[in-house]
Amino acid sequence: MAKQTSERATTAINPARQGGDICRIALIGFGTVGRAVAKILCESGAPSLRLTHICNRNVQRKKQDWVPADVVWTDDIESVLKSNVDIVIELIGGLNPAEQILRKALESGKSVVTANKQLIARCGPDLLQLAASKGCQLEFGASVAGGVPVIPALRTGLCGDRLHGIAGILNGTCNYILSRIENARVPFSEALEEAQARGYAEADASEDLDGGDARAKLAILALAGLRTRVEPESIRARTIRPVDAVDFDYAADLGCTIRQISRADLKEGTLFADVGPCLVPSDSPFGRVQRNLNLVLTSGQYGGDMAFLGAGAGGDPTAVAVVSDVMFVAQGLAGGKRDVASYVSTPGISSDFETPWYLRFFVRDQPGIVARLAQILADHHLNIDSLLQKPGFEKASLPFVITLEPCHDSQLHPALERMAGLDFAIRPCLCLPILR
Amino acid sequence: MAKQTSERATTAINPARQGGDICRIALIGFGTVGRAVAKILCESGAPSLRLTHICNRNVQRKKQDWVPADVVWTDDIESVLKSNVDIVIELIGGLNPAEQILRKALESGKSVVTANKQLIARCGPDLLQLAASKGCQLEFGASVAGGVPVIPALRTGLCGDRLHGIAGILNGTCNYILSRIENARVPFSEALEEAQARGYAEADASEDLDGGDARAKLAILALAGLRTRVEPESIRARTIRPVDAVDFDYAADLGCTIRQISRADLKEGTLFADVGPCLVPSDSPFGRVQRNLNLVLTSGQYGGDMAFLGAGAGGDPTAVAVVSDVMFVAQGLAGGKRDVASYVSTPGISSDFETPWYLRFFVRDQPGIVARLAQILADHHLNIDSLLQKPGFEKASLPFVITLEPCHDSQLHPALERMAGLDFAIRPCLCLPILR
Repeated sequence: MAKQTSERATTAINPARQGGDICRIALIGFGTVGRAVAKILCESGAPSLRLTHICNRNVQRKKQDWVPADVVWTDDIESVLKSNVDIVIELIGGLNPAEQILRKALESGKSVVTANKQLIARCGPDLLQLAASKGCQLEFGASVAGGVPVIPALRTGLCGDRLHGIAGILNGTCNYILSRIENARVPFSEALEEAQARGYAEADASEDLDGGDARAKLAILALAGLRTRVEPESIRARTIRPVDAVDFDYAADLGCTIRQISRADLKEGTLFADVGPCLVPSDSPFGRVQRNLNLVLTSGQYGGDMAFLGAGAGGDPTAVAVVSDVMFVAQGLAGGKRDVASYVSTPGISSDFETPWYLRFFVRDQPGIVARLAQILADHHLNIDSLLQKPGFEKASLPFVITLEPCHDSQLHPALERMAGLDFAIRPCLCLPILR
Repeated sequence: MAKQTSERATTAINPARQGGDICRIALIGFGTVGRAVAKILCESGAPSLRLTHICNRNVQRKKQDWVPADVVWTDDIESVLKSNVDIVIELIGGLNPAEQILRKALESGKSVVTANKQLIARCGPDLLQLAASKGCQLEFGASVAGGVPVIPALRTGLCGDRLHGIAGILNGTCNYILSRIENARVPFSEALEEAQARGYAEADASEDLDGGDARAKLAILALAGLRTRVEPESIRARTIRPVDAVDFDYAADLGCTIRQISRADLKEGTLFADVGPCLVPSDSPFGRVQRNLNLVLTSGQYGGDMAFLGAGAGGDPTAVAVVSDVMFVAQGLAGGKRDVASYVSTPGISSDFETPWYLRFFVRDQPGIVARLAQILADHHLNIDSLLQKPGFEKASLPFVITLEPCHDSQLHPALERMAGLDFAIRPCLCLPILR
């Protein structure tokens, strides 16, 4: 895959990466996400991926000792674009010079992975066209809902459907603020200040609050899922600023809460699109999304409705999206071949989870039952958490429940065997793990 | 991509499919899912995919008039495997002769897409290895949670993470029965009979109830997500049969409900795995899954937790998974090139959704406010659904709410403009769509 052999003696340093197709990767932008991407790439041990360049302003100050010694640190983007890298990861953000970098990379036949929301929202279709014309790939899974693999799912698992609707909670700042007002009934201004203090909102949060961020993401989802070209500015964006605590009181009377929802429906050749605060049923998927999580719902002609929930932002989740795209592109460069098989390990198998337990007995009632069961549990060092008995059952077939504090399966099993022999038990004890 | 030119004059019939790389597809198994797959392929209009063979026993009785005339209908699997197809879709299920068919197809360099859960659970790692050694692809996205693209997400959007846990509600039959007992407190036997009557359970439902189905799916998820080889039989499976209505009463006392959960955690080289009924908090994602839906949660070292929810089974959702895999393989055969750009349309954009509305006013209280607002709404043919006023606010700044029956944005807007001029309004009316 590498278009020329390495000019440096890297094989001695990384013997595991010899042989087969090696994919050479340049990282442009070494901020929070960039560092996390480099870390995952260096730790992944994927034999076919090799980070070769890290490019940033004042790069000498950014050097990290966990990066392999053969990686080139540079602040010269041109030299990276002229090098023999196969994949360029663009993480500098903004429109300029990111667009020029992407175009140059694609024009020189390099595939590109980017997390650049504004650029893809504005120029996605053109850049995809450019990539296709040059026979290379452009992936942007990290540009929307970083930790939620909705773009890859649209590109792969749902591409066989014909989607007609996408809706989502796409802005963590808005969702943090709205769910904070919901839960504490604080005024909007106080919730915003809290979000800023905790790093969930920027000093100037206009882009988030007024919908600019979410509509760029919606434009990307419409491109990837509904295959429509839409300028973000042509999507109506309504601000969440006027929403106040009293609105949550009224919404509650209507069985609802309030969320910033981004939605796009394709109907008879028109794309209906809107971003802004909406009332949603409290017990709906949207109503239950708390804090800075992201949720995306898709509706398809054949497959029906799907929901994706996860961390929307953050360095690590976004980096996972970037590295996943890199692996996907590398696989494409290798002709679609997967090396899953070579990764597969054969671990020992166990069912010996440590959990609290629910034990349900059906007994012929008689004095001393609880005492005898409790003694058996005590003999096996098992701690009772609660004892539950509902009234109104016949003494000949009386159900009652003991819950246990967390213990291993293997610890519980001998106690259950002793219980099975008790004369008052009229059914085997039902024993269920309690997942918290 | 087609290894030899077509021997039949198909280009005249399908002129749109000329040019570029054509991917020739054979469908083996023409039951519910097979028919849905054929339908989607025939309707998709994807220029690079061509269904060339449909293979089934007694195939003459199965012929459909919506299938293009140039498709070969045959009951001779060998002839299909010897033909020049690029991708074989295997939908006959079971281990035999499915395994032989897959092996022969892969050995002759054809890529394979399958929905065969038992086969992949047992032979997945070996078949993946065989595919890799032959330079072709094997995809099985439809083998787990058909309509939920979790396998493609593991393969693409999450492949950059290091996952350590997967848990899911993977069996629709069990979930239908358990959520039915939960909601109606019917005995287990009655819930089972209902599920059978409605087609959610087979006459012999042992494979579902006793966990055989779910543990095969868990083995596949462990392969795709945790990259571990595990024999389905080595995973403990506990039956849901002893769970009865009274257990939901006790579970409710503990804030829980009961679901069949399949879970696998990779810890220090051991795979902890279990399938069976568990108590889960009623307000947790698992606790809220009703009917025959599927939910899968993943936990990763970098990206944290993700949730996928959707239709688990059914012909159409499963067919979407199959067709998506076919498109993915075709893209791989085309060297990773995507033709998204060529699909992109540029629709008209509108924000004129039809929804019910929430209108919140802050007014200086005086007689006649409601009358004047109601008159404006009536003038614009807008129907009031409810009028809400919370007590305890000052008359100088009184909030109250009017909700409207569904109407278009464009219908509401002129009324809002008239309201903006009213002298008693001390803030602009807050106007939010109500999503149901």
